[in-house]
Amino acid sequence: MDFDLSKSVAVLERTPAVLRTLLAGLPEDWTHRHVGPDTWSPFDVVGHLIDGEETDWMTRARIILAQGDDRRFEPFDRFRHLRTNPGKSLDSLLDRFAELRARNLEELRALNLTPDQFRLTGEHPAFGAVTLAQLLATWVVHDLGHLAQVARVMAKQYREAAGPWEAYLPVLHR
Amino acid sequence: MDFDLSKSVAVLERTPAVLRTLLAGLPEDWTHRHVGPDTWSPFDVVGHLIDGEETDWMTRARIILAQGDDRRFEPFDRFRHLRTNPGKSLDSLLDRFAELRARNLEELRALNLTPDQFRLTGEHPAFGAVTLAQLLATWVVHDLGHLAQVARVMAKQYREAAGPWEAYLPVLHR
Repeated sequence: MDFDLSKSVAVLERTPAVLRTLLAGLPEDWTHRHVGPDTWSPFDVVGHLIDGEETDWMTRARIILAQGDDRRFEPFDRFRHLRTNPGKSLDSLLDRFAELRARNLEELRALNLTPDQFRLTGEHPAFGAVTLAQLLATWVVHDLGHLAQVARVMAKQYREAAGPWEAYLPVLHR
Repeated sequence: MDFDLSKSVAVLERTPAVLRTLLAGLPEDWTHRHVGPDTWSPFDVVGHLIDGEETDWMTRARIILAQGDDRRFEPFDRFRHLRTNPGKSLDSLLDRFAELRARNLEELRALNLTPDQFRLTGEHPAFGAVTLAQLLATWVVHDLGHLAQVARVMAKQYREAAGPWEAYLPVLHR
């Protein structure tokens, strides 16, 4: 499917409520456990999504749209949330994510972007020229990838409990 | 984590609302596309979850709890929904799933199961003796696995649109 702004926003605007419906009020055995060193719990993932709202997606969109001399993006710090969120409640992170996402989508809509603007480029620190459409499509895929990750990490908490069914449950082997 | 009934129900009771929040009202480009032959769209996945409510989880729990002479489960038909749901709306499937899940969890709670009962067994057609606890844990993992699948299948609709970022998005390669 080709990039489409309204179809993208339709997914992006749902993510905070999807995560809240899935996670709010669940026992911490589901929300705060990861699946080994260097893996993230659902709590960590919400923190990472907050970092994206604060430092990544719209920040990069603004760099592209400004078309200044230096259009190189700052590398995105994938570990910022591990320093900033210990001690916070999951509910407070879900609230914060919803608030930031709503504000960013409001800004995005207010830009009234045209097809020409979606073809403007910025410079990714690793792979060079990328378009605004690619950035916004990636925002959507990034949300969905982390939603899949949350479900997968939760599923793996019951890997042993499922007994021999484990063999029939591919989510336990990804 | 060991099997725990209330922690299991906490996940199972959320799934219909999670899928509704994610999918209801989305353009069909997100909900009705799959990612190749023999793969399922989000619409198909909801149909499959309905089949589980109607023919699998509680049906098998009843066989285990009855402890009759023949405790062998019927094989679960993973393709039933592909015959029964063409032409139906996604909204009607989301409603049906929510209704069946609520009814099944009501029945499960009303059983007031004891630890001894969680150790009772039935016979799985492929791998033999399985306990009630394993069946119920599998129900939870099955929900989460299909939630991850829905997110993954949606993400893959934007594989090309994401351009060079594809390399950084593992959900596009699973």
